[in-house]
Amino acid sequence: MEHAMTVELRGHLIDQGVFARVMDDVLEYSGAYSIDRFDVGRHHTDESYAQLTVSAETSELLERIIMRLQTHGANPLEPGVASLKPAPRDGVFPEDFYSTTNFDTQVRLNGGWMDVENSEMDCGIIVSEDHARAWTLPVSDVKEGELVVCGGEGVKVLPLPEPARRSPESSNFEFMSGGVSSERPQALQVRQIAQHMRDVKARGEKILWVGGPAIVHTGAGKALEALINEGYADVIFAGNALAAHDIESNLFGTSLGVDLDKGHGVPHGHEHHIRAINKIRTCGSIAAAVEQGVLKGGIMHAMVKNEKEFVLVGSVRDDGPLPDVYTDVIDGQRAMRAALPGVGFAIMVATMLHSIATGNILPAKVPLVSVDINPATVTKLADRGSAQAIGVITDIGLFCEQLAGELVVGYKRE
Amino acid sequence: MEHAMTVELRGHLIDQGVFARVMDDVLEYSGAYSIDRFDVGRHHTDESYAQLTVSAETSELLERIIMRLQTHGANPLEPGVASLKPAPRDGVFPEDFYSTTNFDTQVRLNGGWMDVENSEMDCGIIVSEDHARAWTLPVSDVKEGELVVCGGEGVKVLPLPEPARRSPESSNFEFMSGGVSSERPQALQVRQIAQHMRDVKARGEKILWVGGPAIVHTGAGKALEALINEGYADVIFAGNALAAHDIESNLFGTSLGVDLDKGHGVPHGHEHHIRAINKIRTCGSIAAAVEQGVLKGGIMHAMVKNEKEFVLVGSVRDDGPLPDVYTDVIDGQRAMRAALPGVGFAIMVATMLHSIATGNILPAKVPLVSVDINPATVTKLADRGSAQAIGVITDIGLFCEQLAGELVVGYKRE
Amino acid sequence: MEHAMTVELRGHLIDQGVFARVMDDVLEYSGAYSIDRFDVGRHHTDESYAQLTVSAETSELLERIIMRLQTHGANPLEPGVASLKPAPRDGVFPEDFYSTTNFDTQVRLNGGWMDVENSEMDCGIIVSEDHARAWTLPVSDVKEGELVVCGGEGVKVLPLPEPARRSPESSNFEFMSGGVSSERPQALQVRQIAQHMRDVKARGEKILWVGGPAIVHTGAGKALEALINEGYADVIFAGNALAAHDIESNLFGTSLGVDLDKGHGVPHGHEHHIRAINKIRTCGSIAAAVEQGVLKGGIMHAMVKNEKEFVLVGSVRDDGPLPDVYTDVIDGQRAMRAALPGVGFAIMVATMLHSIATGNILPAKVPLVSVDINPATVTKLADRGSAQAIGVITDIGLFCEQLAGELVVGYKRE
Amino acid sequence: MEHAMTVELRGHLIDQGVFARVMDDVLEYSGAYSIDRFDVGRHHTDESYAQLTVSAETSELLERIIMRLQTHGANPLEPGVASLKPAPRDGVFPEDFYSTTNFDTQVRLNGGWMDVENSEMDCGIIVSEDHARAWTLPVSDVKEGELVVCGGEGVKVLPLPEPARRSPESSNFEFMSGGVSSERPQALQVRQIAQHMRDVKARGEKILWVGGPAIVHTGAGKALEALINEGYADVIFAGNALAAHDIESNLFGTSLGVDLDKGHGVPHGHEHHIRAINKIRTCGSIAAAVEQGVLKGGIMHAMVKNEKEFVLVGSVRDDGPLPDVYTDVIDGQRAMRAALPGVGFAIMVATMLHSIATGNILPAKVPLVSVDINPATVTKLADRGSAQAIGVITDIGLFCEQLAGELVVGYKRE
Repeated sequence: MEHAMTVELRGHLIDQGVFARVMDDVLEYSGAYSIDRFDVGRHHTDESYAQLTVSAETSELLERIIMRLQTHGANPLEPGVASLKPAPRDGVFPEDFYSTTNFDTQVRLNGGWMDVENSEMDCGIIVSEDHARAWTLPVSDVKEGELVVCGGEGVKVLPLPEPARRSPESSNFEFMSGGVSSERPQALQVRQIAQHMRDVKARGEKILWVGGPAIVHTGAGKALEALINEGYADVIFAGNALAAHDIESNLFGTSLGVDLDKGHGVPHGHEHHIRAINKIRTCGSIAAAVEQGVLKGGIMHAMVKNEKEFVLVGSVRDDGPLPDVYTDVIDGQRAMRAALPGVGFAIMVATMLHSIATGNILPAKVPLVSVDINPATVTKLADRGSAQAIGVITDIGLFCEQLAGELVVGYKRE
Repeated sequence: MEHAMTVELRGHLIDQGVFARVMDDVLEYSGAYSIDRFDVGRHHTDESYAQLTVSAETSELLERIIMRLQTHGANPLEPGVASLKPAPRDGVFPEDFYSTTNFDTQVRLNGGWMDVENSEMDCGIIVSEDHARAWTLPVSDVKEGELVVCGGEGVKVLPLPEPARRSPESSNFEFMSGGVSSERPQALQVRQIAQHMRDVKARGEKILWVGGPAIVHTGAGKALEALINEGYADVIFAGNALAAHDIESNLFGTSLGVDLDKGHGVPHGHEHHIRAINKIRTCGSIAAAVEQGVLKGGIMHAMVKNEKEFVLVGSVRDDGPLPDVYTDVIDGQRAMRAALPGVGFAIMVATMLHSIATGNILPAKVPLVSVDINPATVTKLADRGSAQAIGVITDIGLFCEQLAGELVVGYKRE
Repeated sequence: MEHAMTVELRGHLIDQGVFARVMDDVLEYSGAYSIDRFDVGRHHTDESYAQLTVSAETSELLERIIMRLQTHGANPLEPGVASLKPAPRDGVFPEDFYSTTNFDTQVRLNGGWMDVENSEMDCGIIVSEDHARAWTLPVSDVKEGELVVCGGEGVKVLPLPEPARRSPESSNFEFMSGGVSSERPQALQVRQIAQHMRDVKARGEKILWVGGPAIVHTGAGKALEALINEGYADVIFAGNALAAHDIESNLFGTSLGVDLDKGHGVPHGHEHHIRAINKIRTCGSIAAAVEQGVLKGGIMHAMVKNEKEFVLVGSVRDDGPLPDVYTDVIDGQRAMRAALPGVGFAIMVATMLHSIATGNILPAKVPLVSVDINPATVTKLADRGSAQAIGVITDIGLFCEQLAGELVVGYKRE
Repeated sequence: MEHAMTVELRGHLIDQGVFARVMDDVLEYSGAYSIDRFDVGRHHTDESYAQLTVSAETSELLERIIMRLQTHGANPLEPGVASLKPAPRDGVFPEDFYSTTNFDTQVRLNGGWMDVENSEMDCGIIVSEDHARAWTLPVSDVKEGELVVCGGEGVKVLPLPEPARRSPESSNFEFMSGGVSSERPQALQVRQIAQHMRDVKARGEKILWVGGPAIVHTGAGKALEALINEGYADVIFAGNALAAHDIESNLFGTSLGVDLDKGHGVPHGHEHHIRAINKIRTCGSIAAAVEQGVLKGGIMHAMVKNEKEFVLVGSVRDDGPLPDVYTDVIDGQRAMRAALPGVGFAIMVATMLHSIATGNILPAKVPLVSVDINPATVTKLADRGSAQAIGVITDIGLFCEQLAGELVVGYKRE
């Protein structure tokens, strides 16, 4: 192993499994390590500090390992200076571009450290011509000639300041330490999430909902509507299906709303699904349908009435789609990114596709709860880098009902 | 196909899939059929009537097919007279014994039809020496020389009088027409079950709960305790685990109950699990532990205080077990059977093992709701013959919480 | 109920549950029915015939019910003549447009019946100015002024000629009668699918694969590669992820392919994922990467080398994406439609999103097997109208391995 | 915190998460800790060593914490001498009995350490009158007056000598590092398990199979039969269902075996299930049925013919049961324990109940693979203390088919 570099990391390295992941990753990348120093915090509130020397056969491989370790908050002891190369073409990064994490990050250019704007994982870091600013950019948006940070030198990743899950005295938001399970005191979890939402609102931050059509199918639409009216949903990210099913159940209420009120399941693929979409296309947009008095209730209606923002991004299985839907997914990602500033809490309900899409662009510092009856959704989210995801495996219908019961005074489903 | 017999059946043959299953089963048993008559009810509340002639290569096979079709309510046009043979040994039926369904059944001996007592599937029918009575008996309990009905002649199966799921005007208890799904309006389902429980109580019938330990793990113990105190649980069937976890969480409340109240998951296999069991073994029984003031709260405590019956049947994975647990499963089945008279409604929560065990001995006429976050539990129950099972795929914790909220005045989890 | 119409239907109405669904749907749409005639086939190979009069409060509702019943193959006894209206705007159908099924369909204009080209569900039917041709069109593609069939009159749906699942003597492809389950003889199912693929190829038809990235994660990439080389994959529909993971595992084979060969799981979100995408973006396209010698193995390489078609349609969670990916999902749907002619069999492996997308545009007459370890994928596909879907709940890795073992002479994973 | 004790532990404390669990448990039991010493192994093959002082409010609580930490291999620095108390009654331990782990354990009585026989979790440790021997005993089997080790002093737990999962150079049996997932290279896993079985046989150790009825339903019976005949199954633990379904499919082969060969699913609750059981009851036992020529093939037949041992333990949902079934679950556990000596490898297939039951009594040092299509089975097994469990989430039918293909020369399902 010819090439070596020493990195350091600090924090709750043992109890949160950080150090174990660092060691795993070195081995997985065919590198080797030796631990030079490991100062363990004496008590459980103390942080630990470690230094380890990583070695690899080639300098390229070493560089890749170092970049990988930065996703765990390990930074080179001698940070060096960031190397910049121009993007060779529109939509293409230089081969050895630095691939970002979703943590706050800094780059070092002329001796000083500069914050990178808009933490987002799997992006490149662009530096302005005058070296005055740095920001993340997805590969699809890079322009030929823009300066891209390459290699792992001169980049520092700042792990979350406070261990979100492990400080019992400072937080009541630690309910999933120990993994994903449906065998948990759910009523209590709902109450904790409700309290968290109140805190977020009190701080003036936005609450982002990411939702799938099961919200409508499980009868939770009314509860979400009440939560919107009460101010507990500032932004919604969803696909065509959530909006279309919501609108369908409101447009065809007299004859077919029977379903939801009598408790029949809603068969998929009904012709009124596509008929509802055609209706909104006739109106021109969801907002126009509200203005024209065509759409009179439901989730989307509440968003329009309360002047809240929603970003609907389509998928290949969509019917229609609704006129508000971004059919270009890259455009949709851009619209989602644009709606993120100010978001202080994200709750993802019953959608794997849009949950992962949001996880991809969300900074790690934004707390994130994923609610689904299917544990795989939560697991995948965490696997893909949204390590801050807290999973609640539960029934969507009852969850939203209880959340509305906690947050909306006098809420009672008629 | 040398051997043939004509059967008839009546009821909602098409919309409930009964006739399709009859045809399937004939073919699956290598028989053949021809439909002699099919009178379709003109409207959806009308019953249909069908006659079909079934044929098979051998008389033994024909007899097996006829017995099989009786499970769907198809009876021979010419019923004949029941054939009786003595059991050859204790615990052994004659080879061609009639295997029962869980529907009400009659046998014909001397020209008249006689009711078979205790409908239960997969049993034999025993006739008293004087031919005055007939009853079901599991194979393990038959004594040498007892008279056992053999073959399919002289036996009539009575399908349920009223199609439980399909009459919209007469019932509000039809919420699962269309299969098992987690995408349903759950809050509404809870309300329908609550109303059904009130009706059952008003009729003076008993409510049977069948439960697994997830009731405790999901924090639903308090809700079930409240429901017991309010009179909504007359009998509980469970295993060692539900009782042991309930008792453990009550005995070790001060130091370890932290778990449930703070929302930590409960790790399995903790030594206090076995310690709780040892404590109750020291007391002699759960009731003794209540009397001695050792056990002061929880589900089992509420059952003892309210003088309700519980039957705990062990399994091979049990620790201990608690002194109240039947370690012999056949003895346990007998104790469960003995507790069934008067039960007018069964609710099964978070246990596949005890749900299927109860489904095995429960007459088809007792309505049965199966609540689980895992669809497989409900599906298996229906597959194994409990066709009346209505499945609710939801979160146990929130389900019990909402059910208590509906049924217990002033219920609010502190 | 003022408005009434008589419909007829023919086929295996009882054993396949068709008639039960017809009755269900009438009631669900708040209509009523009376059965005028029901001629039951005497033997299980005989078809049945039924006539029923459907009534509703309004003519609009009646029309909607009739349109709905056509999805089950029920057609008006008096077909009438199709009513045509011009599309009011680009991308908008007239309000009462006829919404298509995925069955073969005919329209009647001047007394004669004319075939509708390109069966696809949830579309409109466009008729040419000269009334000489009719074809399906999704709402997004309609132009202002095009003639759209409205209402249910003058439209006939032709159910599948041969009951695909129920004729034991003529077909060995009936393995899922009785619902979705993981408890089936899987080795046998693989053999049946293999035989079916041989038959399809022998008939000169194309085999369409729809796949998700789990094909790569489960190590099934080599098996699929072998199947492609042997000619058992003519078209692939997938997303960015399948192609990106396939390419990543081939590009980074030396240092990181260790994973797949040693049996480690592949952690998601690794930086080499985005690095592999950037590499292909640098080359310009997947085919260019093959030509330039950059990409030397794997699924996508085999497709390029064998000059087979693939359609990659993006989703909102995509990184990059690869340059070959349609980022506009409506464009992607169009590309998928264009690749369908000649497809005689579709196999969908480990992807819910692209399976449903393909099910949306696939005619019902194309046999379709859905293979997934998650039963929900198969169930959703069938729920959404792909009634012909045959589900195989199994492990993707072992499934592909065994399929290659059956179809590729000498196949043995080294 | 008045009471304190110092413990030490050694091994791969960080990368295997051991130390994190130790810290978690202290806090969960309301204790506190300070880390006195932490020597980290420099390289990934080096062991670490830690000393920490644990404190608690009461001596009872401290004792409980210490006992808990021993499950992770942490032992008191000053071990003290074991305290012995007589069992107060048959079936009851003294209140503060030492509750065992499934690791090798030693007790210290007169200055020297003595091995505890039969490692098994959740038991007590009994010491002979003459202090010459010590062994584990479940609470149900203790007799009044037997000497039981109490408190945590004088007991030492020996963690597994070699970290089973993390030493890449010495073992090829490490395939589940990183959690349970269905997205793994399954063909490779099968090959690794096959190799492991060959090694176990070569060492002269026994292979234990624990199986559920899905083995029969998925058509894997033939594969298991071939493996038994080849010597790859020395002991089987199962319930009534596996044996009954296996026998049923063999007894009714001509007329009903159609199911398995044609690929139909096997409906549950068929009357021939109970008929098959009655047949074996007539014969007297499974072995008698084989001798009498009644049972001529299948899994159980192969076990009898090869003179291999099987232990069938009943459950409350059993029909019949078969005469060989232990209806008393505690007797069944004893029979299972008696069959364990010599077992060097355990493979658990498609049964949660019997897998957990076996996990309860199996020493941690016996490698254990759990194969199921349902991840919950594997997760529960690990949660309940069988930390050595390696999970394979796959299809049972294809798994057994491929395993037989690897191990049985010329195996090919006809």
